[in-house]
Amino acid sequence: MALKKKPVTGMKDMLPNEMEIRDYVIHLIKETYKTYGFTSMETPCVEHIENLCSKQGGDNEKLIFKILKRGDKLKLETAKEESDLVDGGLRYDLTVPLARYYANHANELPSPFKALQIGSVWRADRPQRGRFRQFMQCDIDILGEESNLAEIELILATTAMLGKLNFKNFTVNINDRNILKAMAAYCKFQEEDYDEVFIILDKMDKIGAEGVAKELCEMGYERENVEKYLGLFGEIHPDVSGIRFLKEKLGDCLKAETAEGMEWIISSVEAAKECEFHIKFDPTLVRGQSYYTGTIFEVSMDDFGGSVAGGGRYDKMIGKFTGQDTPACGFSIGFERIVMLLLENGYQAPGNKKKKAYLLEKKLPKEGMLRILELAKADRDAGKKVLIVNMKKNKKFQKEQLAADGYTEIIECYADSYDKI
Amino acid sequence: MALKKKPVTGMKDMLPNEMEIRDYVIHLIKETYKTYGFTSMETPCVEHIENLCSKQGGDNEKLIFKILKRGDKLKLETAKEESDLVDGGLRYDLTVPLARYYANHANELPSPFKALQIGSVWRADRPQRGRFRQFMQCDIDILGEESNLAEIELILATTAMLGKLNFKNFTVNINDRNILKAMAAYCKFQEEDYDEVFIILDKMDKIGAEGVAKELCEMGYERENVEKYLGLFGEIHPDVSGIRFLKEKLGDCLKAETAEGMEWIISSVEAAKECEFHIKFDPTLVRGQSYYTGTIFEVSMDDFGGSVAGGGRYDKMIGKFTGQDTPACGFSIGFERIVMLLLENGYQAPGNKKKKAYLLEKKLPKEGMLRILELAKADRDAGKKVLIVNMKKNKKFQKEQLAADGYTEIIECYADSYDKI
Repeated sequence: MALKKKPVTGMKDMLPNEMEIRDYVIHLIKETYKTYGFTSMETPCVEHIENLCSKQGGDNEKLIFKILKRGDKLKLETAKEESDLVDGGLRYDLTVPLARYYANHANELPSPFKALQIGSVWRADRPQRGRFRQFMQCDIDILGEESNLAEIELILATTAMLGKLNFKNFTVNINDRNILKAMAAYCKFQEEDYDEVFIILDKMDKIGAEGVAKELCEMGYERENVEKYLGLFGEIHPDVSGIRFLKEKLGDCLKAETAEGMEWIISSVEAAKECEFHIKFDPTLVRGQSYYTGTIFEVSMDDFGGSVAGGGRYDKMIGKFTGQDTPACGFSIGFERIVMLLLENGYQAPGNKKKKAYLLEKKLPKEGMLRILELAKADRDAGKKVLIVNMKKNKKFQKEQLAADGYTEIIECYADSYDKI
Repeated sequence: MALKKKPVTGMKDMLPNEMEIRDYVIHLIKETYKTYGFTSMETPCVEHIENLCSKQGGDNEKLIFKILKRGDKLKLETAKEESDLVDGGLRYDLTVPLARYYANHANELPSPFKALQIGSVWRADRPQRGRFRQFMQCDIDILGEESNLAEIELILATTAMLGKLNFKNFTVNINDRNILKAMAAYCKFQEEDYDEVFIILDKMDKIGAEGVAKELCEMGYERENVEKYLGLFGEIHPDVSGIRFLKEKLGDCLKAETAEGMEWIISSVEAAKECEFHIKFDPTLVRGQSYYTGTIFEVSMDDFGGSVAGGGRYDKMIGKFTGQDTPACGFSIGFERIVMLLLENGYQAPGNKKKKAYLLEKKLPKEGMLRILELAKADRDAGKKVLIVNMKKNKKFQKEQLAADGYTEIIECYADSYDKI
């Protein structure tokens, strides 16, 4: 059977230069989030197929890599449909497994539990440029904290981390599902239509207010309501004054505590932020996942279309596992996008150790090599990365390659002179 | 559908205390190996089913988690056997994917290529205490280096890393497949019987020389050969003198360069080692994997039955992908065993930052919380891990829990006195 050299369709081999950035970013993320009181945790990459197909994952449930039953449990002859054949799948996000984990271990965990997860997830998406079927996610979640302290800390920690990677002038856009709903209610949309309305609203940044209005009318919504709705968006300032305006305007449609909470999050983040960024109230922010119940937020960057991080409050998911609702709020970084942006910008991981290479002449005697091993040990103790390699026939080319790989010191070791190194 | 709280059979949720050790060990491994010139690389967790079932993996090929084809490619009605249903599987080791990776990218990689991989692998083993179906492997490999410099550096790097984790008095046992074969040839065993003979020899540490002799005789091997074979083992010192003895004794059965190479590896490692350990020539060392072609080695520890690391030379595997043999040698740490031993010994990751918690009274005004956010920022800048939590009704219990989690400073923040903190 011929062996295949390429990775499986849609997945990626990581070359050393990309891995250097990835290793650095992962370490920085962990170190930064831990200073905010988050603790690492992990779940298996394989999850029960029942949990993955429990309607928490929306469209991602269509993209699951499913795992065949094994041994006697696999009954190929009698299997009628796919579900007879599989008992597990690769996780498509880190949130559903987190809910299972918390349900399983709540008694062993601090309360509130501030979870930090970095791990791969898999989605059998149609392959396309820059998107892969295995990718890293990096989530922080606070479980068991009902107050807005959760949102504030998630935003402060995530933005501090982005600042440490030298990202500047990014924007945190924030909204609340309950504000979305209140605005729709105020404009006389029916509750059963909200999801459809929000899916169209979500296109605002692509098709503009006129485009949204047009699509809503085409869907059969009353022109009067649509005009009122779009007019309302036009009146809202993207800051706390916009929230105050809505609090007054929407009256009973919007709970005072929702508006006050949002105002409090924005003003606290403004006051306590650790690096330069903007936080904007964005009433058009929707975020697709159906599990969000309150605040939703996203990080956007000028030089990158689309968000690089997103999250929100999902107070109802853990109850699906435990029968008892637990407040929950999370923020997920688009790790692959961050790494891609850093690679494109030629980012160099700071604090990289000096690299030194010893080239050994082929006829170098054993005493010579022992001497080099000894010198290399001293170099490492002095904080250097040390490579010992046999000298090649084309020494010039070999040295050029090493220089390109960042070796700034290259020592040639010859049989007749190694004792002078 | 009822959601399941437990992880899938045989796999494990990682709790925060274990994750703290794992994060630390992973970072230490990466930092240490990089000072030896190794570079990180990664392959997808999903591998082509053809590559996984190519006879490189021995018994592990029976333990593959297989992945169902998706979309139109899955033809359930016409599928006759398992192989009609699957196109991928979860990797059961990091070596087969490394060979594919090298075949795919050799032109983009330095030569020799010193690879460092840390990643999960999956085997559908019968669940048993302390063994899991998903576990971390940590491999270093040197591809394209035919000289024993490869073995020497792999052993020095791996032992230096174990030393940094405070492991002491461990032993590197080393042998060579060609010495195994030469001894069998010298005692008149037939080449086609070698594998069977070595499987029995491998039980030496469990059933002793007498047990091995008995089993060999029961298998029908001539008593004379068996006695000569076992007698030979009795004469070998576990050091370079044992190798010199064999070099003389086995005559033409053993190539001089094999014996000299082994002697050179042992004496170089002795001379250049960075921490205290023994290196022993062990002519009974077999190692199961069929892909080894030369040197084989293992790390054993007095307080742990079984090996904590193992590896060897496999000069023929990469040629299976490329059609051209490439010298290759690797060393794999039993990451899960290392972590288990550290946990059992109550190991504390050094350099852990100070942990400080602020407890906020519920009626703390907004100015109070802003002040705490400001103080927390200063604490983090000063290198502390900071937790901000709302005060619970049972404050005494809450403080005990925080102390148990390592919070040495706990600051209570009240509405009437927060400005004095």
